[in-house]
Amino acid sequence: MHIVLTIRQIRSAVAAQRKRGKRIGLVPTMGALHQGHMSLIRLAKRKSDFVVVSIFLNPAQFGPKEDLSKYPRDLKGDTAKCRRAGADLVFAPSVSGIYPQGFCTNVTVEGLTEGLCAASRPGHFRGVATVVCKLFNMVQPDVAVFGQKDAQQAAVIKRMVSDLNLPVEIVVAPIVRERDGLAMSSRNAYLTPAERAQAPALRHALQLAKRLVKKGRRSAEAIKREMAKMLDIEAPLGVVEYVEIVDNENLKPVRRIDGKALVALAVKFPSARLIDNTVLQRLMPVPTWA
Amino acid sequence: MHIVLTIRQIRSAVAAQRKRGKRIGLVPTMGALHQGHMSLIRLAKRKSDFVVVSIFLNPAQFGPKEDLSKYPRDLKGDTAKCRRAGADLVFAPSVSGIYPQGFCTNVTVEGLTEGLCAASRPGHFRGVATVVCKLFNMVQPDVAVFGQKDAQQAAVIKRMVSDLNLPVEIVVAPIVRERDGLAMSSRNAYLTPAERAQAPALRHALQLAKRLVKKGRRSAEAIKREMAKMLDIEAPLGVVEYVEIVDNENLKPVRRIDGKALVALAVKFPSARLIDNTVLQRLMPVPTWA
Repeated sequence: MHIVLTIRQIRSAVAAQRKRGKRIGLVPTMGALHQGHMSLIRLAKRKSDFVVVSIFLNPAQFGPKEDLSKYPRDLKGDTAKCRRAGADLVFAPSVSGIYPQGFCTNVTVEGLTEGLCAASRPGHFRGVATVVCKLFNMVQPDVAVFGQKDAQQAAVIKRMVSDLNLPVEIVVAPIVRERDGLAMSSRNAYLTPAERAQAPALRHALQLAKRLVKKGRRSAEAIKREMAKMLDIEAPLGVVEYVEIVDNENLKPVRRIDGKALVALAVKFPSARLIDNTVLQRLMPVPTWA
Repeated sequence: MHIVLTIRQIRSAVAAQRKRGKRIGLVPTMGALHQGHMSLIRLAKRKSDFVVVSIFLNPAQFGPKEDLSKYPRDLKGDTAKCRRAGADLVFAPSVSGIYPQGFCTNVTVEGLTEGLCAASRPGHFRGVATVVCKLFNMVQPDVAVFGQKDAQQAAVIKRMVSDLNLPVEIVVAPIVRERDGLAMSSRNAYLTPAERAQAPALRHALQLAKRLVKKGRRSAEAIKREMAKMLDIEAPLGVVEYVEIVDNENLKPVRRIDGKALVALAVKFPSARLIDNTVLQRLMPVPTWA
């Protein structure tokens, strides 16, 4: 497995594979890879013949008060993980390669970037959409794989691809969790032992929502209230940033759980902000004539 | 020559040509084609093997008070002109095909979209950049041709292509003019005979700027003053919206003409707003040792 650093190199490497009739897969990452990323790479490998993993810590998606400077960096370790997961090429461009002097173009996905994480991270999804659009144009993959953990990001990218007619298939892979249910995240490494002990509360609150829906509860407001209560009890070190139940595609809040809905939450611990989500599915009653 | 109406059709038509090794050219237009557009098509034909002309009257680049509803439409006449100019395919998508329900993604090129036409046409260049990005992703041309008459548009597209790493070559074709010097434009058809008689004043003012630079004048302010004076005299029916001398690439105003600069102007007649531009080039003195 090779590493390439420039746009010219990635283009020529991918063009050579395409000429041989290979289907190209892309897994965009910011590095600090964990089992979640590795599951994306393995999925990309099943969906394509030649998997590119991009590793680019994108300044444009960090707010001025966010953790860009302390975000974990380990290109050597990341590369080894890419190789183990079956990647064919790592693309690790420089910041000046991605944002040369005079850069002034942005892609915005309005409508999907107001609620949930957007409220506390202004400009974040614009930074994500822009860099992903650029990566798609550089690599020109047939398929790209993203993780469901960043559910809003996945929705934004799917919308952008559809709206801008980008010729790429988007696959969203399920969340990979630690043994105790905590969703894998590069930011979990920031947690103190006490915070880490409380972090599974996010998952517990999601499971509570699932149980409540299964029991027949339909009111989003009531379910959110119960979840917030549980988070307050199980994760006293954290501050609940949001608990939301939204439409799975357009991310607009729903009032009643009818069919499918996404329940998503963010909890801010002193050392790291964590997010998690799951899909709620109302079980339709079996018709009496069945 | 065929006409296709849907994204699926254009994709499959272009894919068939690409499979045969053909180089694809694109000329994006809003219809109401004139000799200027035909020169773009002929140029695209020289730069590629298979020329697609898109005809799409893009609502997103018209302001609420602009002339979308009265903009000339003549798909049949336009198609005949495309055929005569050597186009291979006309792509005439519907508004709902380009902007389906829920559409919410935009491409903005900040920095180039503040001065010149942007001041009086808020949102115009966002609409242009977004639809051109979409067209590039639908057609995936190797080369796309735009006219120099819309100099700011050409600069915005070039910047977008570079910033978003779109894999397409942008060619900008020279302005085509009527016998009396008026730059060809679909909007010239709106002019009353009296306005039409005064419209060559735009070109005369540009020629004046060229003469002044040739004579050694360097101050942008002084040149712009002389131009505005001439426009007031030659085109009393028009109101000068702007006369600007800017850097050819980043469109920032320049104070002195050193090397190349773009001089651009807009004049609002009661029946139509006209624009025109030319490149000013300072002739460097012949070195004494030559």
